Amino acid sequence: MTDAVDDIATHPRFVSLEGGEGAGKTTVLNALRDALLREGRDVVSTREPGGTPLAERIRELLLNPDGERIAAETELLLMFASRAQHVRETVLPALARGAWVISDRFTDSSYAYQGGGRGLDLAFIAELERRVVGIRPGLTLLLDLGVSQGRERTLGRDLYPDRIERERDDFFERVRAGFLARARAEPARVRVIDASQPASVVAGDAVAILRMFIDRGGFA
Amino acid sequence: MTDAVDDIATHPRFVSLEGGEGAGKTTVLNALRDALLREGRDVVSTREPGGTPLAERIRELLLNPDGERIAAETELLLMFASRAQHVRETVLPALARGAWVISDRFTDSSYAYQGGGRGLDLAFIAELERRVVGIRPGLTLLLDLGVSQGRERTLGRDLYPDRIERERDDFFERVRAGFLARARAEPARVRVIDASQPASVVAGDAVAILRMFIDRGGFA
Repeated sequence: MTDAVDDIATHPRFVSLEGGEGAGKTTVLNALRDALLREGRDVVSTREPGGTPLAERIRELLLNPDGERIAAETELLLMFASRAQHVRETVLPALARGAWVISDRFTDSSYAYQGGGRGLDLAFIAELERRVVGIRPGLTLLLDLGVSQGRERTLGRDLYPDRIERERDDFFERVRAGFLARARAEPARVRVIDASQPASVVAGDAVAILRMFIDRGGFA
Repeated sequence: MTDAVDDIATHPRFVSLEGGEGAGKTTVLNALRDALLREGRDVVSTREPGGTPLAERIRELLLNPDGERIAAETELLLMFASRAQHVRETVLPALARGAWVISDRFTDSSYAYQGGGRGLDLAFIAELERRVVGIRPGLTLLLDLGVSQGRERTLGRDLYPDRIERERDDFFERVRAGFLARARAEPARVRVIDASQPASVVAGDAVAILRMFIDRGGFA
């Protein structure tokens, strides 16, 4: 299965933000939300893993497993269990009532972290996406940042890094490569923003890309 | 994919108990464990969903989701996330050190409950089994009982029935049919015991079948 030939539907009012730690996803999410709200649009901002009460409880298991080693396969299935719930209970109902949905991470993160980072088979991840997710954002903004720069930015902020934040640099290099492979495979959907720029520039670029996306009625 | 042609390995010291509520799995599990212990064998008795601290936390999400509706796909992936962890952290290490493992439920329950009961695609369940489980018990004892009889037996005991126990009879009829289909597909591995008999008879039959299994060095 390749991205070019699969049959997963995209939705034009569904936007996801992707990228590693320290790339500035939260700042961009707030900027996009504010831009849409100023136009009087209904906006739901959400996140993964999480986005429903049950999915947030799954997030807690993933990030703070109380010392038990989590197998890569367990991590993958917990991510997709959380996503299956998030899609059905939050994303699809919001889209159905006409709202915009902006999600801090979505399925691309599983390709990058569990596929690139953990080395799990991308074909299996694609099968899970097709079987239990069945929808992609119309626009994904990938905030790309070098691993050492991301580390520097989160150094002061993460006094208590979670299980995934404690991974080593080679893991995050594979995650970054996984994200960039997603962008190369679907250039119309996944736009890469250089996140080494100042946060205000990154946020401005993101809003500009969203504006273009809306004006064109979605990318061709 | 059919059971007859798939390539999932069975292990002769791995025994699972399957069946609906009220079928007497706990009594049988104790009888099998005691029979093995009396022979000086190392026995690990475990259960699903659960069997590791993390998997038990997943079990809690599955059975007591605090009122949020759980999508069938979420349920399926949580079950297999718990199983992926259980296999790697409990079942395989116990088998590797030479112990017997007796599990109250294993993958057949997903075919019966999420496949039969919820109507999810059995081919997807088989794919999950192949991708994240990769092992089957050498012997599975299916304690088969009519739905109404199972209800009668659990009536006094379950003051606070969990989310799955609160399902209706037609759900449990489909679960029972799902289990029986597993037995028909793999008659050498899955032995059906009539659980409408008195508990002591059911337990005695189970021990006799296990004894025959051991004496023959596993069923052909």
